[in-house]
Amino acid sequence: MSDPGNDATTNQPALDGRDITEEEVFASHEGGKLSVTPTVGLAGRRDLAIAYTPGVAKVCRAIADDKALTARYTWTHRLVAVVSDGTAVLGLGDIGPRASLPVMEGKSALFKAFADLDSIPLVLETTDVDEIVDTLVHLRPSFGAVNLEDIAAPRCFEIERRLIEALDCPVMHDDQHGTAIVVLAALRNAARVLDRDLASLKVVVSGAGASGVACAKILLSAGASDVVVLDSRGVIHAGREGMNVEKMALAEETNPRGVRGDLAAAVSGADVFLGLSGSTIPESVIASMAEGGIVFALSNPDPEIDPEVARKHAAVVATGRSDYPNQINNVLAFPGVFAGALDAAARRITEAMKLAAADAIADIAAGDEEFGADHIVPSALDPRVAPAVAQAVARAAAEEGVVRRHVAEVAAEGHGH
Amino acid sequence: MSDPGNDATTNQPALDGRDITEEEVFASHEGGKLSVTPTVGLAGRRDLAIAYTPGVAKVCRAIADDKALTARYTWTHRLVAVVSDGTAVLGLGDIGPRASLPVMEGKSALFKAFADLDSIPLVLETTDVDEIVDTLVHLRPSFGAVNLEDIAAPRCFEIERRLIEALDCPVMHDDQHGTAIVVLAALRNAARVLDRDLASLKVVVSGAGASGVACAKILLSAGASDVVVLDSRGVIHAGREGMNVEKMALAEETNPRGVRGDLAAAVSGADVFLGLSGSTIPESVIASMAEGGIVFALSNPDPEIDPEVARKHAAVVATGRSDYPNQINNVLAFPGVFAGALDAAARRITEAMKLAAADAIADIAAGDEEFGADHIVPSALDPRVAPAVAQAVARAAAEEGVVRRHVAEVAAEGHGH
Repeated sequence: MSDPGNDATTNQPALDGRDITEEEVFASHEGGKLSVTPTVGLAGRRDLAIAYTPGVAKVCRAIADDKALTARYTWTHRLVAVVSDGTAVLGLGDIGPRASLPVMEGKSALFKAFADLDSIPLVLETTDVDEIVDTLVHLRPSFGAVNLEDIAAPRCFEIERRLIEALDCPVMHDDQHGTAIVVLAALRNAARVLDRDLASLKVVVSGAGASGVACAKILLSAGASDVVVLDSRGVIHAGREGMNVEKMALAEETNPRGVRGDLAAAVSGADVFLGLSGSTIPESVIASMAEGGIVFALSNPDPEIDPEVARKHAAVVATGRSDYPNQINNVLAFPGVFAGALDAAARRITEAMKLAAADAIADIAAGDEEFGADHIVPSALDPRVAPAVAQAVARAAAEEGVVRRHVAEVAAEGHGH
Repeated sequence: MSDPGNDATTNQPALDGRDITEEEVFASHEGGKLSVTPTVGLAGRRDLAIAYTPGVAKVCRAIADDKALTARYTWTHRLVAVVSDGTAVLGLGDIGPRASLPVMEGKSALFKAFADLDSIPLVLETTDVDEIVDTLVHLRPSFGAVNLEDIAAPRCFEIERRLIEALDCPVMHDDQHGTAIVVLAALRNAARVLDRDLASLKVVVSGAGASGVACAKILLSAGASDVVVLDSRGVIHAGREGMNVEKMALAEETNPRGVRGDLAAAVSGADVFLGLSGSTIPESVIASMAEGGIVFALSNPDPEIDPEVARKHAAVVATGRSDYPNQINNVLAFPGVFAGALDAAARRITEAMKLAAADAIADIAAGDEEFGADHIVPSALDPRVAPAVAQAVARAAAEEGVVRRHVAEVAAEGHGH
């Protein structure tokens, strides 16, 4: 959730003690941020004859005879398509596919830097769900997984659901599940620090967009029993009028105490406030939480409440910012989740794989010497995270049996070389 | 036309004096042949804040305000989509999109090695023309140009025509026009060596697939006046029954002497034999050509006639093979053609741009000390070719006015940095 929301973003202070200037941002983006490079020599006639014609025909024929060999002899097995229609880019909203490209290129760069995964940005000049799904179905042999990015709710839910049905490969909308995985990891550790049980916590989720819905769901999967979700109209509860299908489903699964009303009503006496709304929350409302509360104020660049103010009333505070303790950053999750799913040749990313990813992230921070209220998640740059997440996700995939065994075998054979 | 056609390909002798083994071909393809790498630093928090959030939002907003800035601040301006449905791969035929991937990855590697262009293989699990066109239309903001590859005739003609209409960017089916450009370059120089005028030559084209049709057309554009084309049923002439729309058009534009019959009838007395059919031609037929003939036997790995046998009867002989003089290889054309079109921000690739590319290739060989019957084209690895082709193509684009001026300006501004 490191998503900036206004012009002040590049003047955000203290990222590492120096301001970042507009000049260096634009200079860094000249010509884009990615390059496709050959991994084989092409310097001489012999190189060409091996990597291209006539040699390549041998490899083409082998794949034609056994399609599983695609995983071994092409790059697609570890290639993520980073897909967006540009309708919900950072905090900027619907700025279109072209303007979303710098984010998608950045995402591809992060996939490489953190998990050594290749990826290609594919941005779509359509917001039609059928057209988006058809496009990716037709391109299916071109990639190994799909990372959906910055697609507006509620279309993002249908697009993800239909792609998971249509494609026999990992598909994940990162704004939903990447965020949810890191939030769960952080909440597990906050509970650990406070010696609380997740099931006993009263959780309030402010925001019912992509990330709010996904966070509520993963918390329920992880054992939370009392989750109340709010959108801009207040608490979501069964029987409320005019809700979309996702909110109606949420109303069924959440809010067991039948809370109604506004944010203040919901937060009063709660143990956890999870802000994903982009709005603000008054200090008095945070002060009304139960003793030893947990505040995740994840809007960026401006958290729902100043974290230092929140800390006066809450025992653990996290934000999306790198200049405060406990940064909730998707980069802790998505590189390892996709790497693990692709390593395992998983047909999809299951709830158990997401939970395993959250546990792996939480366990790293919990094992650190500085583990405590101001260190519930690892640093976003911690190089231990992606490999640990990948391993946990791959193991969960194997346990669930969502693995294409023959593909996993030929791919592993290849990686062994 | 360096396209192998059977199992013997990897044992083809004398590429550089050593055989290429099956083992080294497969080892070279392990894990694929491409990698996507970041061109910006991502090592620390400050790097991340510049290349990703929060800094990236500035760039997104700038592009949202002026879409032409996409050419300057994303990689798409110099990104080629290498697109195939796997229906006519090398000499292997319809082996499907997955099995075509090693060729497409190789093509992307060549784009980088020869013209420093990024490119991504996009292979399609559909052969439906509407679906292929729609897929690329939806993905339009993701790339700067489209190289169509290994798509079977006659579908390739309609797909290319409709994509040129639908996309405001360079689109070229390389099997057609890449081949045609290099053939024209070679034929210009063969005529130069023999002190003949292109317009005076009687040309026979054997093969009316993708490359045969394109070669016939570019030769007519370049001033050839007597071109006869044959398919598997014989000479194409006006009034012949059961021809597709491309062949009917060819029948109108070619065969001014109204030749009918088979290959032997057409070749007798001809000045130029251009083989693009994959079949063979007897020595006696080559011997029936006019004095001082030109034979381009471009089928691979087995030319239509042994080039040493052909040389007994013809003054100039070329093949698709690297182990004989005068290799007709598409790599002389496509990297420079796309680089030039993208440098110029051309909306399309015109006939004049293709002719300019052929002239640039021909001029390089004609300027060499060894220019003559055994050196009518530069070596496929000649590093002078792509930059010269790119410059010629960009100039032709500017002269024709097919350039998006604002985009060319902001892109050039960027390249200047």
